[in-house]
Amino acid sequence: MSELFQVVTLDKGRSLITNQWKMPQGIEKVKISESLNRRLAIDLMAAEPVPGFDRSVVDGYAVRAADTFGASESLPALFNIAGEVGMGDKPDVTLQANEAVAIATGGMLPLGADGIVMVEYTEKLDDETIEVFKPSAPGDYVLRQGEDVAAGSVVLAQGTVIGPYQMGLAAAVGYETLEVSKRLRVGVISTGEELVEPAAVPKEGQVRDVNSYCLAGMIEKSGGIPTLYGIVRDDSTLLQRTLDKAIEENDLVIISGGSSVGVRDLTLDVLSEGLIFHGLAIRPGKPTLAAVLKNKLVMGLPGHPASAAIAFYLLVQPLLKWGTYKNDEQTVWAVLNRNLSSGPGREDYVRVKLLSDNNTTVASPVLGKSGLIHTLTEADGMIRIPLSKEGLCAGEKVEVILF
Amino acid sequence: MSELFQVVTLDKGRSLITNQWKMPQGIEKVKISESLNRRLAIDLMAAEPVPGFDRSVVDGYAVRAADTFGASESLPALFNIAGEVGMGDKPDVTLQANEAVAIATGGMLPLGADGIVMVEYTEKLDDETIEVFKPSAPGDYVLRQGEDVAAGSVVLAQGTVIGPYQMGLAAAVGYETLEVSKRLRVGVISTGEELVEPAAVPKEGQVRDVNSYCLAGMIEKSGGIPTLYGIVRDDSTLLQRTLDKAIEENDLVIISGGSSVGVRDLTLDVLSEGLIFHGLAIRPGKPTLAAVLKNKLVMGLPGHPASAAIAFYLLVQPLLKWGTYKNDEQTVWAVLNRNLSSGPGREDYVRVKLLSDNNTTVASPVLGKSGLIHTLTEADGMIRIPLSKEGLCAGEKVEVILF
Repeated sequence: MSELFQVVTLDKGRSLITNQWKMPQGIEKVKISESLNRRLAIDLMAAEPVPGFDRSVVDGYAVRAADTFGASESLPALFNIAGEVGMGDKPDVTLQANEAVAIATGGMLPLGADGIVMVEYTEKLDDETIEVFKPSAPGDYVLRQGEDVAAGSVVLAQGTVIGPYQMGLAAAVGYETLEVSKRLRVGVISTGEELVEPAAVPKEGQVRDVNSYCLAGMIEKSGGIPTLYGIVRDDSTLLQRTLDKAIEENDLVIISGGSSVGVRDLTLDVLSEGLIFHGLAIRPGKPTLAAVLKNKLVMGLPGHPASAAIAFYLLVQPLLKWGTYKNDEQTVWAVLNRNLSSGPGREDYVRVKLLSDNNTTVASPVLGKSGLIHTLTEADGMIRIPLSKEGLCAGEKVEVILF
Repeated sequence: MSELFQVVTLDKGRSLITNQWKMPQGIEKVKISESLNRRLAIDLMAAEPVPGFDRSVVDGYAVRAADTFGASESLPALFNIAGEVGMGDKPDVTLQANEAVAIATGGMLPLGADGIVMVEYTEKLDDETIEVFKPSAPGDYVLRQGEDVAAGSVVLAQGTVIGPYQMGLAAAVGYETLEVSKRLRVGVISTGEELVEPAAVPKEGQVRDVNSYCLAGMIEKSGGIPTLYGIVRDDSTLLQRTLDKAIEENDLVIISGGSSVGVRDLTLDVLSEGLIFHGLAIRPGKPTLAAVLKNKLVMGLPGHPASAAIAFYLLVQPLLKWGTYKNDEQTVWAVLNRNLSSGPGREDYVRVKLLSDNNTTVASPVLGKSGLIHTLTEADGMIRIPLSKEGLCAGEKVEVILF
């Protein structure tokens, strides 16, 4: 199958996937309170303005601002207390000249009032009279009707990943349920002659399957629904049967690559019919491959957990999270603390730990022999050395893509 | 109740909570594949070394390193191919002088071998002979038994929040299930005369309940299990009954504060018996209060969603996430893009959006009138202005606590 091994750039690999795989576009309705981390399938519109009325943002007195002009500590303005705004009520008074109405934060301005005097700048002389020590301008401490959200505006755009505040905002504009994209179901098959299940005690030559569990975690964290199909050894019938089942039951299947040539060839064999690329110009992650079989995307990821993770972050996570390869990861700038070399003709991705040193965020590459597992947990993000660069120097500023 | 209003510092508030509330310490077992975001209740030990045998980290040939000394492009060393290591097998050969055994990444070194020659530095002359162009030192490209994880070592400490890689690491050392701390159940009660449910169309003077949904999201994101108890208006019987039910059904209860004085007083009334502080020297978040009733922690959070969020991050999230107030948030350094003032005697927390400008991470405060909801979604984190500072200047480096 080696004639199929044609290394493509990451961008090319991504466009091959989006061109050749028709991603499921299913929509479902969920309650707001169960919408955390889901992705909005539609633009969320506000039917009415928020707030629906002019509102005080402090505790104080609603006044006609003009009546306070010139008020000072030495020459306070006198107001008659014309009542109190009941929280949640529409006030039934209309303010006359030199009248003030007590109002709490969030209360509705009475008719005639156009400004608020904070309670701190007033003194109550008796039940009917206050002194005001500071002038108020029209609009002071008032949140106008629609100032927060205008009626008819889009408050959250389609594709938004819903966090706690998006949940609150959706409630504010009157949604009980949200239309969100269905979570993609992702099957995971581990291949490798040397692999045993976590519960087994490995014999000499054997190691436990790590990738299935890292991938299950990454899939769930990205918004997918993982299903593990266990370990397949050097057995083409079993691999084919497991793949068929995983394709049947999922939207996307990941085959975590075996190290042995035999298993690698088997994987290629079962994917060859729908292969869309085999090999990416990235390190780590070069042996990544993609196929479309029965309209399902099948990704072959490298066997090394760290390499599989990078390939997952670049090719699978964006699809699960955003349904597209939009470039929307949170990044921060940091200072690299050692030189890093890179080869020509490939992008390098280096996992880094973020440290704080002398009021600076430092990116410290997580190094060590290939295949180490205990270092996996140390990285906070990764940096990219583009195709055009031969490396990065200690002290250089680098953009860290946070995991 | 105002005599109880004694503002305490954040640190004091935290220590009052941990001293007076006995947090539930329940443990449950979950499958590794379902352990994402859970917190380890015990130290995770490795029973056996990882790997369990000396392992190649490249494709190549296992050799006695001494036999390669002096090998070069012009004077290659000759080796007899003495077989191949089957992936997952214990090799049955013992290497003799000038013998090489083909080995793939992850294969077990045969007896007698102490180094690996990468396949790139070899040429196969015939089925029985290879040339080696580069010397190998003992240990080259070999992952030693126990080099990744030593037998008996703690691979993940108690209290670790489990991410995808921790799941993989747990699998690597032989765990099928993990003992994790039980998720805390958190009840949420919204109070306020002006509040209506999201499904209702607010009348003039009314607004929809936002805090219940923001809090539900924040609780879930922090690892808790939220239950919403709806809106309680100015009705002490109903508040008492709702609080009793929430206390009964949860480990911790949050009362999201009403704006009206009446509702605030009601809340204080029902909590007065177990009140441990009322008022925090932070802004926003000053009206935060805490009580312990029937061994359950009850937190009163401010009514403004942005203030409630800050108080939640500082006082509730650490307990849900880590079971303690350890200071383990991910932070990054950024350059502040405007002056910020602060008052004496309080810590200020300012929500910021992170921007990227000229290879620098910029922290841009999310400002605007108090009580705005649409700005809630804009913040990526928050910065702290300590008690001792009167403000921060544009251009200053600030440490951003990421949300």
